[in-house]
Amino acid sequence: MNRLWSEMTRRTEPYIPGEQLNRPEIIKLNTNENPYPPSPRTGEAIQREIGRLQLYPSPTADGLCQAIAERENLPADHVFVANGSDEVLAFSFMAFFDPGQTIRFPDISYSFYPVYSKLFNIPYEEVPLRESFTLNLDGFAQAEGGIILPNPNAPTGIYESLDGIREILEANPDRPVIIDEAYIDFAGPSAAVLIGEYDNLLVTRTTSKSRSLAGLRVGYALGHPGLIEALVRIKDSFNSYTLDRLAQAGAEAAFRDETYFRETTKRIVQTRNRAVEQLGALGFRVLPSSANFLFCTHPEADAEKLCEKLKGRGILVRHFSKPRIQDYLRITVGTDEQMDRLSKVLSEILCK
Amino acid sequence: MNRLWSEMTRRTEPYIPGEQLNRPEIIKLNTNENPYPPSPRTGEAIQREIGRLQLYPSPTADGLCQAIAERENLPADHVFVANGSDEVLAFSFMAFFDPGQTIRFPDISYSFYPVYSKLFNIPYEEVPLRESFTLNLDGFAQAEGGIILPNPNAPTGIYESLDGIREILEANPDRPVIIDEAYIDFAGPSAAVLIGEYDNLLVTRTTSKSRSLAGLRVGYALGHPGLIEALVRIKDSFNSYTLDRLAQAGAEAAFRDETYFRETTKRIVQTRNRAVEQLGALGFRVLPSSANFLFCTHPEADAEKLCEKLKGRGILVRHFSKPRIQDYLRITVGTDEQMDRLSKVLSEILCK
Repeated sequence: MNRLWSEMTRRTEPYIPGEQLNRPEIIKLNTNENPYPPSPRTGEAIQREIGRLQLYPSPTADGLCQAIAERENLPADHVFVANGSDEVLAFSFMAFFDPGQTIRFPDISYSFYPVYSKLFNIPYEEVPLRESFTLNLDGFAQAEGGIILPNPNAPTGIYESLDGIREILEANPDRPVIIDEAYIDFAGPSAAVLIGEYDNLLVTRTTSKSRSLAGLRVGYALGHPGLIEALVRIKDSFNSYTLDRLAQAGAEAAFRDETYFRETTKRIVQTRNRAVEQLGALGFRVLPSSANFLFCTHPEADAEKLCEKLKGRGILVRHFSKPRIQDYLRITVGTDEQMDRLSKVLSEILCK
Repeated sequence: MNRLWSEMTRRTEPYIPGEQLNRPEIIKLNTNENPYPPSPRTGEAIQREIGRLQLYPSPTADGLCQAIAERENLPADHVFVANGSDEVLAFSFMAFFDPGQTIRFPDISYSFYPVYSKLFNIPYEEVPLRESFTLNLDGFAQAEGGIILPNPNAPTGIYESLDGIREILEANPDRPVIIDEAYIDFAGPSAAVLIGEYDNLLVTRTTSKSRSLAGLRVGYALGHPGLIEALVRIKDSFNSYTLDRLAQAGAEAAFRDETYFRETTKRIVQTRNRAVEQLGALGFRVLPSSANFLFCTHPEADAEKLCEKLKGRGILVRHFSKPRIQDYLRITVGTDEQMDRLSKVLSEILCK
């Protein structure tokens, strides 16, 4: 604490990201990165842009917005881009939620939501997931300040059907409903198809997972132009140029390589299904995952200790010391080889 | 306006950046970009990083902070980095200023300050510059909420001596004083040398001007670790990874190429001095500039019309429709060739 800190600084409880130990000998299954590199077109586009770094980037990132719009079959004024989906979410809290109006999100969910709430002084209620870790839809009816939830949920990986999302939208016609689709490309259909029907629906996405661009920091939001305009107003009151030239060009190229995207995404889903069986054979209970990670628990092993032991053997996974999920591990789906290695090391640890 | 907008969205008055028409045939002297490309080492460092884009960047950007710290002769815990100096400034408003406590900045200054103030609901007083456009130091004594001012000032380009900055610091021992040094590398000594003496001094900088990296979005702040910690808390409550891998690597390489930096900066200062004479010969009154731009007025020409006419001839400069400075143009210092062309076109326009 310091006499010069603002009230805002004093009340923050910062988010703690997963460990970024990028040593090549380590198998990193703790931050849901993609094990495959981005489309080769990304690197080419970045190289072409290096010669123009002395010039400001486009503050509106029109080329990137257009590429996303075409891919999503939406007009470009339905698209907002920013510095990773965390910045999209931060701007969304600023643009749509108010101090004094309680928002709701699931009790087990992305742990950045309470952090934003504290930063911007927005009261919140955590709606408990059911015993099965699925959403309790009734708990989201008539939210005072608005709703935010991930679909698929994190860290459970469980996907809620569009019927469920529609039920939440119908029950909150005049409040913003933000569906955080960081992992949607590994799951069922996106709520983006509902944007034409619901002007209170904002869908947020990232390129960090399915587009293999965690290192480039590009996130986006899809929604009615009235919502996009609010995000632009906030962005232009905060930082005119949040996406640098390389990020704009690289991400645009990634969105224009649909074939590569489909191939790598398909491969991860195949590896996921294979890993579910491997973990099941070792006695783990694995929640049904629609993401690029698995959320699992073992009846005879302490999750936190297992996490530590895996780290000692060069494999990073994530453990959350939080009620209801302290017995679980979140394991990113890597390559087949990485998951084979994980399975082998786990079986050695468990047999001891 | 939209029923789903927050109070914050409603009260914003977004910043309008200078036009980003990056057509190669245009001479762009409107956003204070560097006419020279960045150090070749920047491009090399970026190329090396392209192969790791599927992995998150370092959330703490240690390599970049270290390079800046070494260059500034400060410990690394005195350095904060973010997505352009606009983000550094936005975080600083959040970290140090409070609603209900009036801050002060000059009446003629960086036009983003009132934008941040409105966004975060921070009351402000504009302290009028003297007739000569120099700072009225007395006006900054005992500010209730804190102080922010650019040195050299923008858009005037006038540099305030360290004695003046020290006077402001002495008159506000318990309030944050932010000196925005976007243009300091073209001017006299930096207030960074005062950081050891004043724990309430934060110096902000950018790589967009003197490091030729406007397109990469990297800004930084220097100050006592207590201030840096506040910025880190805000950043980690907002967006864990604001600097992508390419920006971190590219900027670090730029800071490690001091020779290139000195050469290009020196060249711009030489061109600036030459351009002052050229404009003087055309009848302009040019304020004494310590930046990479000139702020000038012509007794017989309407500044706004001149700006339009220059645009029609393929040269962009900046005009602000604001009391006291509506008769001035802000002209970025380009290459000698660009300034010769400007001078020629201006003389043609003025002789008509």
